[in-house]
Amino acid sequence: MSRRPRRLVILAEGEFRPHAAKTALGVIRYGPDPVLAVIDSTRAGANARDLLGPAFDVPVVATLDEVLPLGPTALLIGIAPTGGRLPSTWRAIILRAIRAGLDVHSGLHTFVSEDPEFVAAAAEVGVELIDYRKPPERMETSVGRLHRPGSRVILTVGTDCAIGKMSVALELRRAARAAGVSTSFVATGQTGIMIEGWGVAIDRVVSDFVQGTCEWLSEEGEARGDWVFVEGQGSLDHPAYSSVTLGLIHGFTPHAMVLVHKPGLLEHDFDHLPERSFPLHPLPEMIRIHEEIAGLVAPSRVVAIALNTSLLDEAAARHEIERTAAETGLPCDDPFRFGGRSLFAALRPRVEALPWIDRTEVTV
Amino acid sequence: MSRRPRRLVILAEGEFRPHAAKTALGVIRYGPDPVLAVIDSTRAGANARDLLGPAFDVPVVATLDEVLPLGPTALLIGIAPTGGRLPSTWRAIILRAIRAGLDVHSGLHTFVSEDPEFVAAAAEVGVELIDYRKPPERMETSVGRLHRPGSRVILTVGTDCAIGKMSVALELRRAARAAGVSTSFVATGQTGIMIEGWGVAIDRVVSDFVQGTCEWLSEEGEARGDWVFVEGQGSLDHPAYSSVTLGLIHGFTPHAMVLVHKPGLLEHDFDHLPERSFPLHPLPEMIRIHEEIAGLVAPSRVVAIALNTSLLDEAAARHEIERTAAETGLPCDDPFRFGGRSLFAALRPRVEALPWIDRTEVTV
Repeated sequence: MSRRPRRLVILAEGEFRPHAAKTALGVIRYGPDPVLAVIDSTRAGANARDLLGPAFDVPVVATLDEVLPLGPTALLIGIAPTGGRLPSTWRAIILRAIRAGLDVHSGLHTFVSEDPEFVAAAAEVGVELIDYRKPPERMETSVGRLHRPGSRVILTVGTDCAIGKMSVALELRRAARAAGVSTSFVATGQTGIMIEGWGVAIDRVVSDFVQGTCEWLSEEGEARGDWVFVEGQGSLDHPAYSSVTLGLIHGFTPHAMVLVHKPGLLEHDFDHLPERSFPLHPLPEMIRIHEEIAGLVAPSRVVAIALNTSLLDEAAARHEIERTAAETGLPCDDPFRFGGRSLFAALRPRVEALPWIDRTEVTV
Repeated sequence: MSRRPRRLVILAEGEFRPHAAKTALGVIRYGPDPVLAVIDSTRAGANARDLLGPAFDVPVVATLDEVLPLGPTALLIGIAPTGGRLPSTWRAIILRAIRAGLDVHSGLHTFVSEDPEFVAAAAEVGVELIDYRKPPERMETSVGRLHRPGSRVILTVGTDCAIGKMSVALELRRAARAAGVSTSFVATGQTGIMIEGWGVAIDRVVSDFVQGTCEWLSEEGEARGDWVFVEGQGSLDHPAYSSVTLGLIHGFTPHAMVLVHKPGLLEHDFDHLPERSFPLHPLPEMIRIHEEIAGLVAPSRVVAIALNTSLLDEAAARHEIERTAAETGLPCDDPFRFGGRSLFAALRPRVEALPWIDRTEVTV
């Protein structure tokens, strides 16, 4: 994907809050392009600072028209509609953006580049409609590729979806870079692709090709750096998404995993049937199960715990990090809140000591 | 899918042998429609009897033209080309069949109904091009549906792909029917759909919707019978397909599983890189892992072992069945070779005794 200079405005109508707007917040925090404003008429006057801290000064406005004088080049859809269909109010904003000469960047399952009304409007004005979730034409199953010697492939896994696996991978990549090692980030979801400029939204790939696509993405990541941090998806115990999670584990065959958990979260984010709940599993059980399941195809180990302490104040966060390190016997930190340096420094020797690092024998 | 009378001819050019022609053999053995002939010019003069036993008298012929006087209504593509593209010799046979007024039934990843040359020819003659692997338009994730009380959902799982999970499910359904219980079969692959007339090729579904599709198929199966036998796919330790396998386990949330194994098979059928091999895991380990992984979402138990004893003579087969029953403490038989009655009779009380059968409480 091209990397010409962009100036973004992000559509997050009615949803500019943590979790619901995770694409918007991820792009603001980690993306390479300036974000001029966020559109959410229900929160006009707010600022991304309120959610992400003082370094992220992006105003929330009520309408696209307020942003147009600032010269945006693209509208980025930063949220997902319930049920997958575009609400009519969003359609109107997208059409207005196209007619104002803005590209549209979308991570929705419903492709904007296949919507006849958008396509016709875009053709008239000469703007681009980019679907980050569109899978590659490549349709290949795994072939059992071994990692390039010298590479260290690290996958973030989690106790739930939407708790920060992408952010942890990005923070660890940043820390690795700061430590002077060759490193890359592999995006496996639409937000990661918007940030990094390449990758595949694995949840949109035909299931027969999930592991083959991950294997290929691993090769691409290894070509870009030695320490390859892969964004995980879902969780192994999620009623709806566990198969995508396993596809990443068996497709990337990571040398090691970092397990992401959000203290305070007790149940999966899964509220379809009010009478059902799916409790999260305890960390020690999740560590054991990840290692066991990964090991069915290639050995791997959980080498660190990354906590998302957003539900805790700073003192409670530091206490929970210590408690978790003691409970699991693993390095633990919140790299989103406190930076990834200490976690990377702690996991690095553990990864280097893995018996299967740089192995040249070929049996599992 | 319609069930008007059909008379099939099956294309298996160069491949009419066990494993490679598993679609052809499955349709001959279990399908509702008469099969007039199999086309394989490399084996002309042979007969399906040689592979399936005396009840299955289907001649192998060299060319389509030899079969046309017998009045076939459809050409069924009974094999998969390496690399997914249709060899030009097959294209010629398919075109000849269309022009002779035959429908084309295909389970290939490459859809015949989207091939411009086939579509044009079919339109001229007025025949149908049917792709059994085409996924439903429905794109929904799981909602955590509970099974209908009174239903018993049984999933076949395995130690490898292509070892008989579909056949075991069909034999158990037949045995359940013979025992006078209300029963149904859920097809999750193209051969099963060709046989049963409905179902979804799960490996062709977008990964985000795999578990939601399985949940929906379970509901459909439960509407058709009390004892629901679901065709499994792949294996949990397969380098290329394990995520599809897990999608079925967490999507169908079966009350119980039947583990299929082929004694004599030591490695996964996975020969992409000559220097790599992926050994199968021992049965007791696979039983434990299936129950543990299933239990992350809903409790399930392996209640029987189905052996595919095709590599053994009858005495060795019976010995291996006894040995496996002793090793695992579970009922064991080869329902393909010896019929499914004894295995169904043995697993039935075990399923009825599961603590989660007919549970009405809603926590996991």
